[in-house]
Amino acid sequence: MREWEKNIRRVVPYVAGEQPNKKNMVKLNTNECPYPPTPKLEEALASMDLDRARLYPDLDAKILVKAIADFYNVDEEQVFVGVGSDDVLANVFLTFFNSDKPILFPDITYSFYPVWSDVYGIKYKTKPVDKDFRLVKEDYYEENGGIIFPNPNAPTGIYEELDFVEDIVKNNQKSVVVVDEAYIDFGGKSALELVPKYENLLVVQTFSKSRSTAGLRIGFAIGSKDLIQAMKDVKFSINSYTMNMPSITGGAAVVADKDYFDKIRNMIIETRENTKSELTKRGFTFPNSMANFIFATHKDYDITDMFKYLREKDVYVRHWDAENIKDYLRITIGTDEEMKKFLEVVDEYMEANK
Amino acid sequence: MREWEKNIRRVVPYVAGEQPNKKNMVKLNTNECPYPPTPKLEEALASMDLDRARLYPDLDAKILVKAIADFYNVDEEQVFVGVGSDDVLANVFLTFFNSDKPILFPDITYSFYPVWSDVYGIKYKTKPVDKDFRLVKEDYYEENGGIIFPNPNAPTGIYEELDFVEDIVKNNQKSVVVVDEAYIDFGGKSALELVPKYENLLVVQTFSKSRSTAGLRIGFAIGSKDLIQAMKDVKFSINSYTMNMPSITGGAAVVADKDYFDKIRNMIIETRENTKSELTKRGFTFPNSMANFIFATHKDYDITDMFKYLREKDVYVRHWDAENIKDYLRITIGTDEEMKKFLEVVDEYMEANK
Repeated sequence: MREWEKNIRRVVPYVAGEQPNKKNMVKLNTNECPYPPTPKLEEALASMDLDRARLYPDLDAKILVKAIADFYNVDEEQVFVGVGSDDVLANVFLTFFNSDKPILFPDITYSFYPVWSDVYGIKYKTKPVDKDFRLVKEDYYEENGGIIFPNPNAPTGIYEELDFVEDIVKNNQKSVVVVDEAYIDFGGKSALELVPKYENLLVVQTFSKSRSTAGLRIGFAIGSKDLIQAMKDVKFSINSYTMNMPSITGGAAVVADKDYFDKIRNMIIETRENTKSELTKRGFTFPNSMANFIFATHKDYDITDMFKYLREKDVYVRHWDAENIKDYLRITIGTDEEMKKFLEVVDEYMEANK
Repeated sequence: MREWEKNIRRVVPYVAGEQPNKKNMVKLNTNECPYPPTPKLEEALASMDLDRARLYPDLDAKILVKAIADFYNVDEEQVFVGVGSDDVLANVFLTFFNSDKPILFPDITYSFYPVWSDVYGIKYKTKPVDKDFRLVKEDYYEENGGIIFPNPNAPTGIYEELDFVEDIVKNNQKSVVVVDEAYIDFGGKSALELVPKYENLLVVQTFSKSRSTAGLRIGFAIGSKDLIQAMKDVKFSINSYTMNMPSITGGAAVVADKDYFDKIRNMIIETRENTKSELTKRGFTFPNSMANFIFATHKDYDITDMFKYLREKDVYVRHWDAENIKDYLRITIGTDEEMKKFLEVVDEYMEANK
């Protein structure tokens, strides 16, 4: 090793789902929305005065923050925006998880949590989910340096009711509790309604799923003003201007179109429920997902092999090699047509391997 | 203090230049480009297929990386892109400055360096510039955990020739040496030509000044493949998708238009040289700036007072209260018309205070 290499921070980076770009592929591997963004996005971007792109964007991303605050009926001072919810969550880890005690999160969950912990030198302890992949809330009542969990959880899609979430917050008044709600708009009830009651509760959401703008990179957090101010202070110590002009302008237009938002998430929910029936008919089992994906297994088939078969047929779903989840596929909910194609290829595979 | 607040990371955030937005103001305070971006930007953004905004953007920002690699005639594997050069530099600090020994940078320099050091817990030692604000290269020959300095330096605008830069790199083969070239396109010679010779040299640049797209948030680093890979590994541990679709598409179009780039930076250089003459005529003194700003003082006037007067007249320049630079104004080079307006208000002030 060369001398100058010795001080390089060595990390095991997060590996994102592959991003193939083939004609006629069925891409059900990264939980994107199958429907295009609201047409208001195109209008908003076309209306930008690009001469102003010479200037730094608004430091406070005010019009975007205001649109989010209006939508959720909170104060603007309660909203933090970032470059996708990954940026927001990384900021959460850096800002709040700064204790000698370990933070707690489930062992089966968003795989970025241990990665952020490692890169920022944060101690963590994972808590096993039960045999049905459910979080065990009592596990989170021990002393800790902070708590984070997704609801619905990833990659299982399991949603816990608000009283479950509130129990965890109530039993952790000494910590910051973060609920990562990337998938909340597909049938769950947001913990946002608990925010006025708990100053230590932070809710994180994203535009990448239910708002169909993963390509714009917008995520946000809502919590008490004190939590949000602490996040802003840290953010302004790293990069003052994270939100660019198109994301501010476009994002504000996207969040303002509530009708479109409701329309597409309801379509996804309907397709998900149909897909559940179809999978059940074929003998698959899965936790009851309230997200825009289904985490399914089949006792009679080799799932790794099925995954490879699907991939060869240009049907991309997500699969992990980790021992505890290797028998599962995470299938993003696409359009009805995409799900039909997916099921056809599954049928082909089952037919050939029965 | 509430219990949950105890683990919050407390930082002294960087304070960016104010971003007023008044009609007829003259904004010479944040080193933005006074000319609009290339018209190719509008074309590129209009050509985006916004239906694809539902998808995550390209993880590797390939078309942008390729455009930069082509422009500078380096391999794509030698290019790292980020959300402005602040994002790139923050990543540099986290990736490379990970030693028990302090990193070194000048005491008068970009004020974000100590902020990043603090937020990431990096030890640093500042090296005083000399009485003419020049870096003393021998100061950087002692043992260290890394070196960073801007060339031209901020906020002085002083440019050091490449043999000076090379001496620092040559004497620091055990460290990563970072040259922050935010302002290199205004007359200096980039250290990029040293990159093939030194695997431990990283050059950082930005689209926010000479490429007139601060609003898109694009910065980049060029170095050996090993340096760039290490940065990517850390970046993928924080946020895989930092560059959004408009910044990738727009940025590629911006960097491809070399004629426009040359035209506007030459206009700025010409205006800067004229402004130097005008300031000299009025008794101002300043280091010989090779940047898009001038760092000027006047022995006969109270600079803080002059700053306030300019501000009242909606002419915004940058001023710091720090003892060692409080007698200086940092004046961004605007259009000829803006500089004329600036000088008129300066004349008014001098007339009223002689």
